[in-house]
This record gives sequence, C-alpha cells and structure tokens, in this order.
Amino acid sequence: MHPIDPAEDFKVPRAEIDRRISNLQEAMQQHGMDAVFILQRQDLFYFSGTAQNAFLYVPAADAPTLFVKKYMPRAEMEAGIARRIEIRSVRDLPGRITDIYGAMANVLGFELDVMPVKEFRFYRDLLDPGDCVDASFLILDLRKIKSPWEIDRMKQTARVSAAVFDYIRTAIRPGISEIEFSGMYETCARKLGHGAGIRVRDYRSEVYNWHILSGKSGGMAGLLDAPASGPGTSPAFPCGASRKLLAAGEPIMIDISTVVNGYHTDETRMFAIGGMPEAACDACRAAIDIHNAVLEAARPGVAVGELYELSVSRARQLGYADPFLGPPGYKVTFIGHGVGLELVEPPYIAKGRNDLLMPGMTMALEPKMVFENQYSAGIESMFVVTETGAELISEVPVDIFIC
Amino acid sequence: MHPIDPAEDFKVPRAEIDRRISNLQEAMQQHGMDAVFILQRQDLFYFSGTAQNAFLYVPAADAPTLFVKKYMPRAEMEAGIARRIEIRSVRDLPGRITDIYGAMANVLGFELDVMPVKEFRFYRDLLDPGDCVDASFLILDLRKIKSPWEIDRMKQTARVSAAVFDYIRTAIRPGISEIEFSGMYETCARKLGHGAGIRVRDYRSEVYNWHILSGKSGGMAGLLDAPASGPGTSPAFPCGASRKLLAAGEPIMIDISTVVNGYHTDETRMFAIGGMPEAACDACRAAIDIHNAVLEAARPGVAVGELYELSVSRARQLGYADPFLGPPGYKVTFIGHGVGLELVEPPYIAKGRNDLLMPGMTMALEPKMVFENQYSAGIESMFVVTETGAELISEVPVDIFIC
Repeated sequence: MHPIDPAEDFKVPRAEIDRRISNLQEAMQQHGMDAVFILQRQDLFYFSGTAQNAFLYVPAADAPTLFVKKYMPRAEMEAGIARRIEIRSVRDLPGRITDIYGAMANVLGFELDVMPVKEFRFYRDLLDPGDCVDASFLILDLRKIKSPWEIDRMKQTARVSAAVFDYIRTAIRPGISEIEFSGMYETCARKLGHGAGIRVRDYRSEVYNWHILSGKSGGMAGLLDAPASGPGTSPAFPCGASRKLLAAGEPIMIDISTVVNGYHTDETRMFAIGGMPEAACDACRAAIDIHNAVLEAARPGVAVGELYELSVSRARQLGYADPFLGPPGYKVTFIGHGVGLELVEPPYIAKGRNDLLMPGMTMALEPKMVFENQYSAGIESMFVVTETGAELISEVPVDIFIC
Repeated sequence: MHPIDPAEDFKVPRAEIDRRISNLQEAMQQHGMDAVFILQRQDLFYFSGTAQNAFLYVPAADAPTLFVKKYMPRAEMEAGIARRIEIRSVRDLPGRITDIYGAMANVLGFELDVMPVKEFRFYRDLLDPGDCVDASFLILDLRKIKSPWEIDRMKQTARVSAAVFDYIRTAIRPGISEIEFSGMYETCARKLGHGAGIRVRDYRSEVYNWHILSGKSGGMAGLLDAPASGPGTSPAFPCGASRKLLAAGEPIMIDISTVVNGYHTDETRMFAIGGMPEAACDACRAAIDIHNAVLEAARPGVAVGELYELSVSRARQLGYADPFLGPPGYKVTFIGHGVGLELVEPPYIAKGRNDLLMPGMTMALEPKMVFENQYSAGIESMFVVTETGAELISEVPVDIFIC
C-alpha cells in the first residue's frame, strides 16, 4: 500500500463530537450526575477531538467547556467543542467554571478507574463539589459502540496492519533476534502510517508492539494476562520479544497492534521459516477453526460469555483442552476484547460475562494455545458486530504463513 | 559496539535488594508506617528484583513477603526476597498476611501517586488496615540515590545509546520521514540491547522513543511539559515525530531514551544534513555553553533551583532569553530531572526547588530553546553526582552533528 498521505485530515468531525457529548449527557442524567470532569487523554480526545493538555467539563444539561492549559493554538484547530478557554493554571478552574455555569456541579463525575488517589484528592479539594462519583463506567460504556465514522477509521488502521503483515512475510529470516525483527516491522508500520503510540487504560498493563514469540519463547508463561508472556528483554521488562534468534522450522507467533489517528487494531498470525512441525501446524489450524466458529456465532444479542464457552468446548472437541488459553494452572479466562481508542476496552469476551454483543462493537478475537516450554499457536483478528452478525475488519488472510 | 550478550545475567544482586529493603524500613519507622504494600511495576522491581504480577508486603520491623500471582517459576528465579508465596487470587492476601505476621498492619502505606481511586478502594477494603497513608514519597526518595551497581547499569545503557547516536550519524538522510527514521534508529537500539519498554510514573505523561523534531517541527509547542512538542502523527498522538520528511540544511533535534534491564538514559543531540543556518548553529552552541556551565556548577550540596537560575541567567547573557525553555508564554520551568528505573524521576532541576544534589543522583540535563515556527536547538546529557562534583554518564560527544 501507499503510505498514508501526510496531508490527510485527521480532524474528528464536529457531528461525531456533538453526538458523543449528547450521549454522555443522557447517561449522566440517568445516573444522577450533574457534570463530568474529563482529563484522561483518550477520553478527552473522544469527547473533544483534541488530546492537548486540557480539561473537559461537561454539565448534564448545558454546553460543555474545554479548558486548555497547553497548547491553545492547536486545541483551537482540533477541538469540536465550541466553548474553549485558555487557563494558565489548573487553579483557575473553579473560578472559571462558576463564572460560566453559576455554580460548581453538586454531583461531579471523575475518571476514578485511572485517576490516582493523590491527583483525585487534589481536584476534589480544588473543585469542591457536593459529591464526587465515578464516571468511568459511563464513558467506557459509550465508547463500546463505534459510529460508522469510527469503524471506517479502524478499517483504515487494518489496511496499514495488513501491509505490515505482508512486509513480515517477505522480511522474516533466520538469525535475526526477535527484538531486532520487531524494530524492522515497526519501522515499516511507521512508514505506512502507524502512529506508534499504543494506548491502554490500566497503568499496570504491559502494551507494546514487539510481542513476537518464536519457538520456545512462545511456551513461556509470565506476568501478562495472556496465554503466553514470552521472555522479554530482561527481568525489568519480562514479556514480549527477547534477544533469542529466529530459527527455521519453529512456530513463530507475531501479535501486532497498529494505530492510526488513535484507532487501534490488534492482530496475530503464526509464521514459520521453511515450515513447522506437523503437530504445531495442526494446533494453528485448530485455533483458526475455533476462531471461525466463534465468528460465525457472533451476532447482536449473543452474550459474550457464551462465545467464550463455545471456544472452550470447541477446543476440547478438537483435543486441545490442555494448551488452550495457557498452560494448566495459568489459563486466562477470555478469548477477546473490545478495541478502539485503547488497545483493550470493554466488553471482554470472557468467562461468565453477560454483556450482549451490539451492532458497532469492534473486537479482537484471539483463541490461543500454549504448549509449555515448546511454543504458542493461535490467531487474532478484528471484527465488527453488524446488524445481523459479525464481519472481519482485518484484511490479513486468516491463515498460517510459511515463508 | 557488539550487541549485549544474550547470555548476560541481568539478575539484581541480593545485596542490592537487602539494602533497599533495609533503607525502606528505616524510612517507614521514621514516618510511622507499620508496613508498605507495593504493586507498581518499577517499585516492585526495585525492591524485589522481579517485575512479575506480584505484590510486595514490607513490614517496618520484620522480613518482607513477595506474594506472586503470576508467574511463580520466574519470580523464583528473579526475586531477591527470601519469603515468596504463590497466590491464586488477590483475595488470598489478607489471610496470608495475617498468617505470617499475626495481624494486618495498623498504618499501611500505598503508592497513592499511581494507584487509581477504584483500585485503592478495593485494596483498602480487602486489606482493611487501621489507616491508609501515602508511601510514594518515601519510595521515590530512596530511588533518587543510585548505588555503584546501579550507576554501572546506567553506564551500560549509555554505551548502547552512544552507539545508536553513531548509527544516526551514518544513516540520516533527506527524504525519510521523521517517524520512519525513528523506527530505523530504534531498530538499531533494539539490536544492540535496548529493552524497548520505556517506563514513566505519571499516567498522563507521554513518553516514547520517537522525539525527532526536524526544522519547523521543532518550532511547535504543544501538550508536553517540554520546550517543544512537535507535530506528532495525528491529533490523537500530537507530539514527537511526524510524517514530515527530513531535509538538508535544517536543524534536527533527536531526543532518545534507551533502557537496558530497566535503567534508562535520556539524551538529545542536534543533527543537520549538509549544514544548518549560522544562527541555528549559534543557538546550538549556546545550549552547549549553558549545559557545560550547569555541569561545572553541579556538586553535592548545591540546590537544584540554583542550577536552574544559573541556566536562565546564562541564556540571558548569551542573548537567548526569548527562546530559552520554550516560546514566551509557554516556557517550562525546569532544565533537568532524575533518571533511573523511570525516565523521569525526582529530583527535578526546576525553578524554586530546594532539593540539594547528593552523590549517586543520576540526572538528565537538557537546556533547550524553541524558535517558534522555526526550529528547536538544545542538548541533553546524563550525569551522575559524585563526592566532589558531577561527571557525564553519557558517552555521546557533547557536540553538534553535521552529517
């Protein structure tokens, strides 16, 4: 593919922002919040169109205000919020808010799933509302359903990602270390339009673009809430690619996140140089079988927990109960997750979850197996829930790549 | 240089862990804490030697316990904590802690600068101590002073970083985009031993390895608490490298973080292809002059605020008051910061700060200028405070690179 045009206009349309704000206000009214105070970067970008150093104050029944600390000239160009006010210090916030709205909100919502205690106490004391409540669940709930414009953005990202997988097929060779090879394909990704910065919500999550697990690296469990963690480069970063050299004949799992203007994809394919043992190939095919069975069953109204159970019973039928979702004793209990402005978002296709699939949800589906101390096998695709079923967003062939 | 030997033993020596725990216990006793509960990844690695999914409980006057959720076999190999206990769920923690110590701590310290409110409330209710207090300032205070072993680690990182700057000098050329070129030098860094994952404490900080600002990109302020932010790749990631192509004749600022086994360096050099305008070259030389003057003045007992003032008055003397530390109205008020297991740590060489330099502090010194809408000029080196002064850890020549 051609690299993304440097002149491409990445501005979030005003109609998107208006709809998002309006949906948030409706949810706030249902939950008895008088206003929400947003500062986490992805939430801010979602509701305002800018990711500058700024604060978005959204009353339940009045127009929102974007307070910009740094840098106003760029926030002016990017933001879809009509009322934009520059502040020199966050200490200006309470005075400005009461100037505009007559009073501080009584019940004020914060992003309490990401805001550290010290920071929360600072803003609570500064803004001094009647009551402080958690608004993060409302925000994440709205972000679950992507608009047609957002789905188009994710398809754009998927095109870049597919081109990166094409590059990997031509460039993979024995003797390069996992970590060096990760740099090579990430360079290709950046050249084609990958925005490089992968976003996640949880401060203890490890997200990175070098999850390449070759041979025995894929057989290594570890800290990640994932079937395999891989060795990583040191005890300080003990997951993902290592200094191990790629070799012919081994199963190589490559799990890539790509992001274009904030919208991520999360995709995994199995590679081998020359070939891989038949048993490994069978496991990769079984993962594809499970993937296709889940995709076939995915449609609006299906509970995510049912899809999880389907994958587990399918793995059992195929004879892969032991390695499925991790080594015995260390299995994960999910086979997929929402993807959007963050690499990992609700809903989670997880054991016991009752969330129902709804049109506009964009999800990663990742049935994976770990053969302890041997290798990983699996696949990961992106799909969108449509009115009647589910469609792949991913453009990478659903296949095993023997190079 | 040769890449770091894949067989290199990165294990943190037991004596390091013992000393750190003992220092923490002394500080806890001074501050009236009965125990500290550590889970942030860098803090955990610092005090235990492992970064697995684990929890470290350190009583003020008893041996610590490492509770490992996932993955015990690796924690066993990595950790320098003698008592290690595997748990299946964090809900096992209170029972296990009271089994070992007879009771839960009365005053229990948490990392409240990073722990989100929702998570804190969960652990507060789960562990149910008499009182919950902030322990983050104690932890960060101890981490400020690096041991000789840690300083050696940082010198190892600096050798990798210097080799990456060498690579940049040979590989830089017109027509490559900033973002693609960042991938090229990061691939080189990963090949040589760079561990790829850059750590930072603040969830709203943007840290990344592609801060390459060529020509006008360097003249662009933005969200970062840095003199220039650069365009970034989109409004969703509005800082650092962009899709702008490198060109001959323009000043190019390249700011790189390298990390080996958790220890970072943070270094910046100016490059130009063929040459740069004389005025830009003069500004780069002035930044080096300021850098050298501050380094000359740095020694134990000097207040960091004095070094900041020295830099500002030197910039004024040299005729660069206007561009120094950012465009007028958007200047930052620091010229450096601690570096270690996180890219940005206390102390900050900042306006009005009274922290005194102490032997063993490892710091980045970064006097930079922004000529708005034109370019950035500056330098950034790593130094360590010795018994009598300050020494560069950086091995990159303190120079401007015309390639």
